[in-house]
Amino acid sequence: MSLIVQKFGGTSVGTVEKIKAVAEKIAGFRARGHDVVVAVSAMSGETNRLIGLAHEIQKAPNPRELDVLVSTGEQVTIALLCMALENLGCQARSYTGAQVSILTDSSHTKARIREIDDRKIRQDLEAGRVVVVAGFQGVDEHNNITTLGRGGSDTTGVALAAALNADECQIYTDVEGVYTTDPRVVPNAKRLDQITFEEMLEMASLGSKVLQIRAVEFAGKYKVPLRVLSTFKEGPGTLITLDEENSTMEQPVVSGIAFNRDEAKVSVLGVPETPGVAAQILSAVGDANIEIDVIVQNISSDRLTNDLTFTVHRNELEKAKDIVEEIAGNLNARAVQTDDKITKVSVVGVGMRSHAGVASRMFKTLADENINIQMISTSEIKISVIIDERYLELAVRALHTAFELDNSEEA
Amino acid sequence: MSLIVQKFGGTSVGTVEKIKAVAEKIAGFRARGHDVVVAVSAMSGETNRLIGLAHEIQKAPNPRELDVLVSTGEQVTIALLCMALENLGCQARSYTGAQVSILTDSSHTKARIREIDDRKIRQDLEAGRVVVVAGFQGVDEHNNITTLGRGGSDTTGVALAAALNADECQIYTDVEGVYTTDPRVVPNAKRLDQITFEEMLEMASLGSKVLQIRAVEFAGKYKVPLRVLSTFKEGPGTLITLDEENSTMEQPVVSGIAFNRDEAKVSVLGVPETPGVAAQILSAVGDANIEIDVIVQNISSDRLTNDLTFTVHRNELEKAKDIVEEIAGNLNARAVQTDDKITKVSVVGVGMRSHAGVASRMFKTLADENINIQMISTSEIKISVIIDERYLELAVRALHTAFELDNSEEA
Repeated sequence: MSLIVQKFGGTSVGTVEKIKAVAEKIAGFRARGHDVVVAVSAMSGETNRLIGLAHEIQKAPNPRELDVLVSTGEQVTIALLCMALENLGCQARSYTGAQVSILTDSSHTKARIREIDDRKIRQDLEAGRVVVVAGFQGVDEHNNITTLGRGGSDTTGVALAAALNADECQIYTDVEGVYTTDPRVVPNAKRLDQITFEEMLEMASLGSKVLQIRAVEFAGKYKVPLRVLSTFKEGPGTLITLDEENSTMEQPVVSGIAFNRDEAKVSVLGVPETPGVAAQILSAVGDANIEIDVIVQNISSDRLTNDLTFTVHRNELEKAKDIVEEIAGNLNARAVQTDDKITKVSVVGVGMRSHAGVASRMFKTLADENINIQMISTSEIKISVIIDERYLELAVRALHTAFELDNSEEA
Repeated sequence: MSLIVQKFGGTSVGTVEKIKAVAEKIAGFRARGHDVVVAVSAMSGETNRLIGLAHEIQKAPNPRELDVLVSTGEQVTIALLCMALENLGCQARSYTGAQVSILTDSSHTKARIREIDDRKIRQDLEAGRVVVVAGFQGVDEHNNITTLGRGGSDTTGVALAAALNADECQIYTDVEGVYTTDPRVVPNAKRLDQITFEEMLEMASLGSKVLQIRAVEFAGKYKVPLRVLSTFKEGPGTLITLDEENSTMEQPVVSGIAFNRDEAKVSVLGVPETPGVAAQILSAVGDANIEIDVIVQNISSDRLTNDLTFTVHRNELEKAKDIVEEIAGNLNARAVQTDDKITKVSVVGVGMRSHAGVASRMFKTLADENINIQMISTSEIKISVIIDERYLELAVRALHTAFELDNSEEA
């Protein structure tokens, strides 16, 4: 008898039939005596449909109203899932983010969870009910509906697990676990039995898309045992482990190749060589709540000015460009250039710490494929490069082979 | 400068383009200096789509979860409408029923409004904003989402007008006002310039579908000036007036012919001739929250037993039948029969009070068309008959002509 939090994503609940199948899975856990709290996403396609409606009206939809709109997606799922559970004789009760309540800050479309009130959930669990919570959403202190941003249902799941001190947080998805890279790009990618939180963070932030980065951060911070597994196929999935030493021992140098198709590049050319200029530009972007990823600064050929280049999410490129162009004008910078045809590819592994030569092997592999590296960024356990998006698949496949990650068992 | 509450129904906000048109209408009122509060329905088709999803899962969907599900429909509209208003430079803010809050009882799918907290709305109006409220929904004291039942957005509009002491409550719809009968059945039906609350109540309850009955009751009770008018065509619409004496003077004996296609009949045959038996049956049906409309009881031919017949909404026929069959068994009644192929047709008019002969003219008109009357029910200002649904259109047209309601101006 344990308390399990389960999170089901959009593809897992994409149709009424799939919702019924998810209900059977949940009812199975209940039948084995577990207490179950479920966080669900909107039915796949629904969030995009709603955002599409908004964009038919406003180019940049009002963020508060966008949250009111988009949060209906999960609200539909929680109701349908509770009905499906009741049909199986499994008592259930749904809660929106506001009803729980999942208190967040007021950053609409990318709010952060501050506190979860677990009282209603515990009452329902004690009454023998399955509790179904709308993922991705919350409510701020003024009772405005907020959303956590794309993939935020994972965060909801992990945050619920942390608040309830759950025994395990299971993230159900359409893949069987965390792979050495995206199997759609490299068909003989391998499922990892386990991976460290640290590695998973790098994989998630780089767009491996299995888990949202914030969810992994949350899980690591609150030491929530996290397991990624398939909704549709039985299997052990991938356990995301706290115990780095243990897991590292048998791990290869590189655990996986991650990539992110959503990056876009902003370059400010000819910035005056004055202290604080880069900070001025980057903090203006940060103040607009735009996340900056890779940053590179070079002395330009004239040696009097700098070129500053950084990457942001493609959705934020227009907004970032507007901000930077205004500042660039004030600074008499030479030009602002943007490029959204780029991609980031990274090799990730805690084993890197104790093994030299990963970077050189990576750069040589790309050079052998005639792939030009535009930017480089490194951390203790990953090396990332920005390349032309046309070479994404080629780069990932070549690196996957070069770091001996190919699955020999499957074709 | 006045405070106007406007309600837009599902067909008025059925597409993004229509939502934009509604926003322009609202912005026009703002530009003329009025304070505007808006209540909106779900985009047409959306509520049925959601109910359809529920029925794919549960034959009788859990009412609490059905409300969670269905209430998303209006939530989508409020967000989109606020975006459209902002696009026109008109600051707006949306509220769900729970956010206002619109406090209701806990009768899911048919909740009644208890109280509206007008503080947030007044703050927004003072700040110069248009306030857009989700119609049809509220929240009970335990923070469960409730809905007011079909057509409940009218009630929301009127209740808001009452709570805010608005100068006028405008119900926008796809017709140009209240007609002497449904123009789809009688093409030369006339728009009424005004109608009394009392008449409107009878018209609405009988299914003229322009306004929901509860909304009219509310408006009458709180003396909210109510106007029904078209979203798509400019025009004065129909004013629903408090001043019966004035309006009656120039009114014809009969103001309109109403009908209701949603009725179904339950007959309990051979009920023992014992006091309290009818009450026992009817209160059991009432306890199940099923509204009973027409009731007729006859001594049967054996003179020892009664036949009790009543009508309910077709959607509730199965439920009513189950309840009645159980009681009928206990009472040793001879049989329970049901019929959902019936319809109710009524003539309505405050002028009836001072004019005799309306009933006889009605019955003679139907007899001339060979239409058999199954049940009769009368009130001070209306006479209703239950007939075979096949004769609905014929009956309405014949009565419309017989009571001189045909519009001579249009073909």
